Amino acid sequence: MKFEFQNPTHLVFAAGALSRLGEVASAHGKRALLVTGGGSVKRSGVFDRAVSSLKLAGVSVVECSGIEPNPRISSVIRGAGIARSEKCDVVIALGGGSTMDASKVIAAAVLYEGDPWDMFLHGQENVHVPASALPVITVPTLAATGSEMNCGAVISNEESKVKSFIQANCLYPKVALVDPELTLTVPADHTAYGVCDIITHVTEGYFNGVEGTPLQDRFAEGVILTAMEWGKKAVADGSDIEARAQVQWASVVALNGWVQIGTDAAFPVHMIEHTLSALHDIAHGAGLAVVNPAWMRFAAKARPARFAQFAQRIFGVPARPGDELGCAIEGIERFEAFLASIGCPLRLSQLGIDAALLQQYAQDTLHIVHDDQGRLPGCPPMGESDIVDVLRSAL
Amino acid sequence: MKFEFQNPTHLVFAAGALSRLGEVASAHGKRALLVTGGGSVKRSGVFDRAVSSLKLAGVSVVECSGIEPNPRISSVIRGAGIARSEKCDVVIALGGGSTMDASKVIAAAVLYEGDPWDMFLHGQENVHVPASALPVITVPTLAATGSEMNCGAVISNEESKVKSFIQANCLYPKVALVDPELTLTVPADHTAYGVCDIITHVTEGYFNGVEGTPLQDRFAEGVILTAMEWGKKAVADGSDIEARAQVQWASVVALNGWVQIGTDAAFPVHMIEHTLSALHDIAHGAGLAVVNPAWMRFAAKARPARFAQFAQRIFGVPARPGDELGCAIEGIERFEAFLASIGCPLRLSQLGIDAALLQQYAQDTLHIVHDDQGRLPGCPPMGESDIVDVLRSAL
Repeated sequence: MKFEFQNPTHLVFAAGALSRLGEVASAHGKRALLVTGGGSVKRSGVFDRAVSSLKLAGVSVVECSGIEPNPRISSVIRGAGIARSEKCDVVIALGGGSTMDASKVIAAAVLYEGDPWDMFLHGQENVHVPASALPVITVPTLAATGSEMNCGAVISNEESKVKSFIQANCLYPKVALVDPELTLTVPADHTAYGVCDIITHVTEGYFNGVEGTPLQDRFAEGVILTAMEWGKKAVADGSDIEARAQVQWASVVALNGWVQIGTDAAFPVHMIEHTLSALHDIAHGAGLAVVNPAWMRFAAKARPARFAQFAQRIFGVPARPGDELGCAIEGIERFEAFLASIGCPLRLSQLGIDAALLQQYAQDTLHIVHDDQGRLPGCPPMGESDIVDVLRSAL
Repeated sequence: MKFEFQNPTHLVFAAGALSRLGEVASAHGKRALLVTGGGSVKRSGVFDRAVSSLKLAGVSVVECSGIEPNPRISSVIRGAGIARSEKCDVVIALGGGSTMDASKVIAAAVLYEGDPWDMFLHGQENVHVPASALPVITVPTLAATGSEMNCGAVISNEESKVKSFIQANCLYPKVALVDPELTLTVPADHTAYGVCDIITHVTEGYFNGVEGTPLQDRFAEGVILTAMEWGKKAVADGSDIEARAQVQWASVVALNGWVQIGTDAAFPVHMIEHTLSALHDIAHGAGLAVVNPAWMRFAAKARPARFAQFAQRIFGVPARPGDELGCAIEGIERFEAFLASIGCPLRLSQLGIDAALLQQYAQDTLHIVHDDQGRLPGCPPMGESDIVDVLRSAL
């Protein structure tokens, strides 16, 4: 085990914390670019409450609305343009993962003269990893992405149809203002997709990390068990603030680096799903619900002991001496049953995706990230035909 | 659940990381006060390796050795005097919890004109919580205290016989350079005391925190299970670097704030033990091994469900519907058996402590910290007679 870690984000977690936005933001700037997605924060009144809090604290507000799901580089360029011309000195993301991801990249793009797409890590040469960005404050309205307390972002290029990612220390939000009340209006389906996203963030490290991280294993299992227990309640009753808070908290933890620390994890399931949602406008968490179990059946053969541990510790499947793979498969089946029970899709057909482009999904995935043998990193690494096979098994 | 959290420490964790000390320190200062405890780091060659690394990176070294176990405020004053007269601009702690705690307070005391004891939180009025300190780098040589990545310190006043604590944001180390190789020479008994310290850091929050923190419960259980599994191996074979690394990592996590986050935990077992080790020069972890199980038997009556959860999840004790307390007690017995199995004491008599001063221990504890009804905070709060009873049960 060998690693470095530093997450400087100041986390403020409380029901009702939105009312502190102005106080929190005024420590970092006087003129905020307030970034939002669709109209839901306006319909719910959250936008107006945010603006009131900011103005009360003497922070003026410039609006950048309309960040789409699977946010586009063109939206980033538009937001950076507004921030620059309006001389904003702080970027506030009020929304879900798309809004937060776009906000981070806007904050870096404001200070970068070139094409912001240069900052992305999709296998190209001469990546310009940003060294500075405007301060960012994240106010998540959805429990899913974990973007609120990490330094990564995923953005799509609508021209090249590439969904790529960025990671840079300057993108850690100064403050993550996490108010579970803001998730009370999220509909059941997107609540469920969020739960799947949370779980998948930790299964990636759990199944694709190095051996010899027993404490991190326990942390990952803790996130999975908590997200399952409380996610089910949040889907069943969206007004259950206790369930919303627990799921929101699991979302923060699942991708702020604490759980994956030292695992040197790869994210093959995310990489494959990104390709799907770059070409089809599907919800990321729904895509993960389809890809993850299919990938698990593939990967379990290479690492049955680890998948058997998952089955035993998460679902209480009895150990089967001499048949670890059988135990592993039972765990995967139970995981699928859980996902189905909260309303997640399990087949590509449920997402409107058929077999026509399987090869292209595989090629696009490998185009974005591959090891020196051209394979998708993970345990085990995947060639093009492996990716096609996994997706075909999920048709 | 409602909390704020920020831990800015840069964690560098690797076997062999000591060789990077110079590189790491040179980013924070050019003249280091190198603080050490007894002579063990000199005998082992670790001191010389540290000095070499620092000099190679252009960092000059001023020595402050002889920080005693249960470090004294007079040592802090001595260290601050050296740092001031030698114009040190960074403080490096190379040692165990005592050395790291003293180093943090030295770093603050250098910048404070008054009596450093003013900065401590033992129920007195007009506490001077420090707002600034020299940068601190921690290099732990023992897996126990967790001081390497948090902003607290415990110091004894040899005149008043008070062992008090300090907590301030400026005391977060800039870097925690954690090299499990440095713990290879720790003898079996102190390895075991360290394991007990690690476990007790998380049981405090687990048993004395608020209700409704299921994810934090899982994290705490993860630390306990990992510390038990790998602690046993480290005690059995001190040269097992894998076991040393896992225990060291558990030590960092157990008190860097991640596990206790949002639990609003009290630390009654630590408070009672501090009184014992202020009056008797016993190892902190050994004192905890005696006090914690005795306290658990007392506290389980007030919170049997939580102790039954501990019994079930840590030791696999079967649930006993209708007899949660019975299940809880079985868990505590198994915990005692574990502590005994790694060589920890379980009775005060093993520490050379008899019944003569029980009343004084209780009064001293309550003098340092008490709620507005004069009780020691915890679940349940303890009056003087409760503390006496708990200690008497451990004679």
